[in-house]
Amino acid sequence: MSPLVTSENRDGTPESPIVKRILLGDPLASENADEHLLPKRMALPIFASDALSSVAYAPQEMLMILLAGGLAFLAFAPWVAAAVVLLLVVVVLSYRQLIRAYPSGGGDYEVARTNLGEVPGVIVASALLVDYILTVAVSTASGVDNIISAVPALNPWRVELAVGCVALIVVVNLRGVREASRAFAIPTYVFVGSVGVMVVTGLLRTAVGAAPVAASAHYVVHAQSISQAAVILLLLRAFSSGCSALTGVEAVANGVQAFRRPKIRNARATLVMLGGIATLMFAGLVALALISRVQYAQDPCDLQGFDCHTPQPSLMAQLAAATFGAASIPFFIVQAATACVLLLAANTAFNGFPLLGAVLARDGYAPKALNTRGDRLVYSNGMIVLGVAAIVVLLVYEANLSNLIQLYIIGVFVSFSLGQIGMIRHWIRGLRRIRSLPDDARAQQSAQRQRQSFKRGLAINSLGATITSAVLVIVTITKFTHGAWLVFLAIPILSTLMMGVYRYYRDVDHETRMDDTVHFGSAGDVALILVNRLQKPVVKALDYALAARHEKTLALHVAVTKDESAALRKAWQQHRMPVPLITIESPFRSYAGPVIEFIKKYREEHGSSVVTVYLPQYIVGHWWERILHNRRARRMAQQLMLVHGVTITLVPWLLDSSELIYGRRSRPVPGQARAGFPTSPEPHYDHEPRRR
Amino acid sequence: MSPLVTSENRDGTPESPIVKRILLGDPLASENADEHLLPKRMALPIFASDALSSVAYAPQEMLMILLAGGLAFLAFAPWVAAAVVLLLVVVVLSYRQLIRAYPSGGGDYEVARTNLGEVPGVIVASALLVDYILTVAVSTASGVDNIISAVPALNPWRVELAVGCVALIVVVNLRGVREASRAFAIPTYVFVGSVGVMVVTGLLRTAVGAAPVAASAHYVVHAQSISQAAVILLLLRAFSSGCSALTGVEAVANGVQAFRRPKIRNARATLVMLGGIATLMFAGLVALALISRVQYAQDPCDLQGFDCHTPQPSLMAQLAAATFGAASIPFFIVQAATACVLLLAANTAFNGFPLLGAVLARDGYAPKALNTRGDRLVYSNGMIVLGVAAIVVLLVYEANLSNLIQLYIIGVFVSFSLGQIGMIRHWIRGLRRIRSLPDDARAQQSAQRQRQSFKRGLAINSLGATITSAVLVIVTITKFTHGAWLVFLAIPILSTLMMGVYRYYRDVDHETRMDDTVHFGSAGDVALILVNRLQKPVVKALDYALAARHEKTLALHVAVTKDESAALRKAWQQHRMPVPLITIESPFRSYAGPVIEFIKKYREEHGSSVVTVYLPQYIVGHWWERILHNRRARRMAQQLMLVHGVTITLVPWLLDSSELIYGRRSRPVPGQARAGFPTSPEPHYDHEPRRR
Repeated sequence: MSPLVTSENRDGTPESPIVKRILLGDPLASENADEHLLPKRMALPIFASDALSSVAYAPQEMLMILLAGGLAFLAFAPWVAAAVVLLLVVVVLSYRQLIRAYPSGGGDYEVARTNLGEVPGVIVASALLVDYILTVAVSTASGVDNIISAVPALNPWRVELAVGCVALIVVVNLRGVREASRAFAIPTYVFVGSVGVMVVTGLLRTAVGAAPVAASAHYVVHAQSISQAAVILLLLRAFSSGCSALTGVEAVANGVQAFRRPKIRNARATLVMLGGIATLMFAGLVALALISRVQYAQDPCDLQGFDCHTPQPSLMAQLAAATFGAASIPFFIVQAATACVLLLAANTAFNGFPLLGAVLARDGYAPKALNTRGDRLVYSNGMIVLGVAAIVVLLVYEANLSNLIQLYIIGVFVSFSLGQIGMIRHWIRGLRRIRSLPDDARAQQSAQRQRQSFKRGLAINSLGATITSAVLVIVTITKFTHGAWLVFLAIPILSTLMMGVYRYYRDVDHETRMDDTVHFGSAGDVALILVNRLQKPVVKALDYALAARHEKTLALHVAVTKDESAALRKAWQQHRMPVPLITIESPFRSYAGPVIEFIKKYREEHGSSVVTVYLPQYIVGHWWERILHNRRARRMAQQLMLVHGVTITLVPWLLDSSELIYGRRSRPVPGQARAGFPTSPEPHYDHEPRRR
Repeated sequence: MSPLVTSENRDGTPESPIVKRILLGDPLASENADEHLLPKRMALPIFASDALSSVAYAPQEMLMILLAGGLAFLAFAPWVAAAVVLLLVVVVLSYRQLIRAYPSGGGDYEVARTNLGEVPGVIVASALLVDYILTVAVSTASGVDNIISAVPALNPWRVELAVGCVALIVVVNLRGVREASRAFAIPTYVFVGSVGVMVVTGLLRTAVGAAPVAASAHYVVHAQSISQAAVILLLLRAFSSGCSALTGVEAVANGVQAFRRPKIRNARATLVMLGGIATLMFAGLVALALISRVQYAQDPCDLQGFDCHTPQPSLMAQLAAATFGAASIPFFIVQAATACVLLLAANTAFNGFPLLGAVLARDGYAPKALNTRGDRLVYSNGMIVLGVAAIVVLLVYEANLSNLIQLYIIGVFVSFSLGQIGMIRHWIRGLRRIRSLPDDARAQQSAQRQRQSFKRGLAINSLGATITSAVLVIVTITKFTHGAWLVFLAIPILSTLMMGVYRYYRDVDHETRMDDTVHFGSAGDVALILVNRLQKPVVKALDYALAARHEKTLALHVAVTKDESAALRKAWQQHRMPVPLITIESPFRSYAGPVIEFIKKYREEHGSSVVTVYLPQYIVGHWWERILHNRRARRMAQQLMLVHGVTITLVPWLLDSSELIYGRRSRPVPGQARAGFPTSPEPHYDHEPRRR
């Protein structure tokens, strides 16, 4: 019935590239990659938005846990907060060392892999990937929380809002890193500024005796009476939740390569700025919350006096309302900036995740597609994977911040700890190397300086490793049964997958590597042109096969019905085709089977090693045309390619429909037309030789 | 990073063929097609199950409409039923003529197309296709209704049951026509037998004065008071619904080719048997319903005394319960047989729809895929299309019989009428032909006999055309506003689509037809081997390109990063590759763009007409491996095929994973291994020549 051809559309609908351009901007050349490096003032908001924005929820979650024990527990709040700040300082100092030693952008992953081996490296990578996903989910959930605190009418669309925000961030990020940074710098600075003003205003009001009072100050909390052991556990849990303020600090270390030169100095300076600002904001917000006596409960129905069918305002909203007055303009500025910076914090992950993915792909632990830069110099595939994963998490947890935060931080502290332990190993190795240096005066002096620096690094990272490991233990104990077990499941699974991917690539590489068995000299090649009906696409395929001057060229017909075969043989003689037509019977209406049989028999008789099967293939202009063409050729190609020594040559036949769309015409112009292939009116495709 | 290769899995998962075998049985050879022809005793249940089963719902729907006017209207029931029976007789006689004149299986479609032209033919085809879909939906809905009447606990799963049944029927039918007929013969005969016994028992009980009384006999119906005009409309509506008993009669005419020889006589005999049985059953059931005073309302809440939250038992269930006693064994036999035959009636459509689809595809009005017989000699694609469409209809109408029946019959009567009108034309033409015959004594005698026969045909079909056209008008008037407008929308849309498909195939055929512009003699061919990294698959492609002895063979490298290019050039020299390596820069990381540019420039300089691009392609063993390989080669091929004069040669490289699955080994055996392509231990693939 139909010719032995199948259809092939262009890479998508013709509109899609235009839509892509509008959404994502014009493609960028590789040489411009340097121009896209970030100056400090841009890098700070990009890499710091995660760490800074986490102060929007860390105090809230910390105080929430303390309040679960009763009002009296708030007395511990300053101490818990101090512990968190201390930890933050230690981590910042540790990461300054790490940036200096490993500026290539792999961060904890690279440190762990280089110093501790493959498995710890992969574990760190898995932990970080999980945490990037959770960063997006937690930041978005908290951002939506703050939007709803300002506009409670949006409460029914909490999940939809969160998912929509993630989708928006993905699109913005696919546009490329610099546009993203520009858009993201302003809200981060507005957030830091407005929270600063709020804290200062609140403290000043307290100093003049008009301390702000939160709307929730007079609610009565149902306190559980708890034992002494539970007191300690409660404090530790509060500390664990407060530690969420630390998330995002590692982002700078993972993104050193995105900084403008001098990369290392700029990255370290940015890290210190980030640490300072985060410390001030965290301490200020906790102080303000204690002064204004904010009450925040995991289950808002525990707050006597609060209508728990309405959304509970976030800590940030309560503070802003208490300081500036509810529904005042500064209140809305603080809420808008908080929501923005939280949503944009998700953006940090969209810088870090694809970079880490690309590093993993480069090292062979992740699919190579993650190391493919898109048109706009960003690792598009990684961003899409991250966006989808975050949306799934948000849907599963219904964008509930307090539940999501239970999964959070584990990954961060896994990578913190392994990274710091790796750094200890790094400095010890460095010191050993210096010791083994030759006994030269000048070298000794320089080695002396280096040894000092290494020893300092060793001391700082040892402290960091000890403290972060201790915190990891605390976090694990206090959060495991609250949902964190899921993370402990995800990290080994991801690690195992990565090891599997690595082994797979290694095997494929081994299989395809050049070795002594590689020789040339295949011979006895034969070309088979598959023919179903004598039509122009078949003639074109035949013409091309003849042009390639194979040793032997045969036309092959699989006969399913007798009428068709007879008609073909008649037409073949009539048009005096220059190649013999071989007809093979197919009792089971299979097309590939008899062809494979024929190739097998032909080889037995002629000892041919290379068989080239020519398949005409229609190129169509519209997706729906594919429905109207058989997929027979495609299926045939897939089956024939499983036979050793067979190659498939696809000879495209552009239908008029495809030509119209791509602005060309194939209908042969009388007198000008030539040999099977359509002529084209444009000069640059029309270079077929004129000799006949 | 990765070699310029992409992945290709086998046609599906490796398990799928086995699963397919178990579900669908072994493949059948075309020669066996004759053995699969149906003897009458098998053809009757297959082609008649639709027409026979429709007596299970036609009386119910007819009486329901009458009862909507009040109990008094039941007095009209015998007259309405008589009209339906009369119509049935006329239609059966008309189709006997049609089978004789057009035995090829196109039925009304073929008659209308041959005698009335393309557009009426396409309209009939559309009407029939719509009706086949509705047959499946209505029969399944009614079948499920009867199952629920016997087992009311299943009521909540009405839609799920209906959809599940259609899916089951699709699978059974994909196994092939004979297995289907065997499975379907028994319930049809049981149904006919059990309904016969029920009617006779009921009539006997009435004769001895113990007439059966339906459970619903004492319910009070809320009758609407209606005007005289409305009385006539109500009677016409009842007649329209009763006409659903006629559906399925045309199935025999469409399926003549599936009968065992002598096809025409067997088909005609089957049709008459079918008509007789259907008439007896329809009349018997209406009589029994009237005797036992069954009440059936469209909205069961209109029945005072009936708990309308429980499912209303079907008419058949009420009759069986009244005759044999509720929950008696004969009651369950009748219900089971009714449900079975209704579900199996859907099967009629699974014989007719694919056959009609194949005829349409043969004539160029439907995608050619519908004319592709599956492994088991059935038109699999048509069956799948029908199954999916019926499931969609069932889901949209929530398997509600009374709503579905409103859409029904329109299509049947459209094709009845156009078919009969076509037959009138056919006989008139025949008579004209006889008149124009030469004046020969013997021929005259035979012509005389023929003229007699043609005149008889003309008379019968004229009667048929008049009556069916009248009924079409009635059905349209009474059903249009009750949902049938949807069918009047669907038929023109389908017809337009078919005409579009026809025009498309005609244009493609015109484009590809052999004509004077066809010449041979392309020359100046060049082979380009795309290289990303020097690996064995590339060497294999190169070796094959050399074996094909193109005029010129070049290796082409698209340079995206400098390191990769340098490494490749070094390896190229080191391994002393026999072909020059050309490096082209790609500033935008595009792969296809620079290659197209190169081809363009090369042609400008060398005037080459045929460019063969060699692309190595990985063949993988598991679906997940595809994630780990770039799709770059595939995208590249799609873009290059849009360039005139370019052909793509895919050189497969079977990875070990694919080999393990297909039972071969590719890992080169030391000492035995050769030139890039893996050796295979089996004799029948190992025919590469041993000369080096």
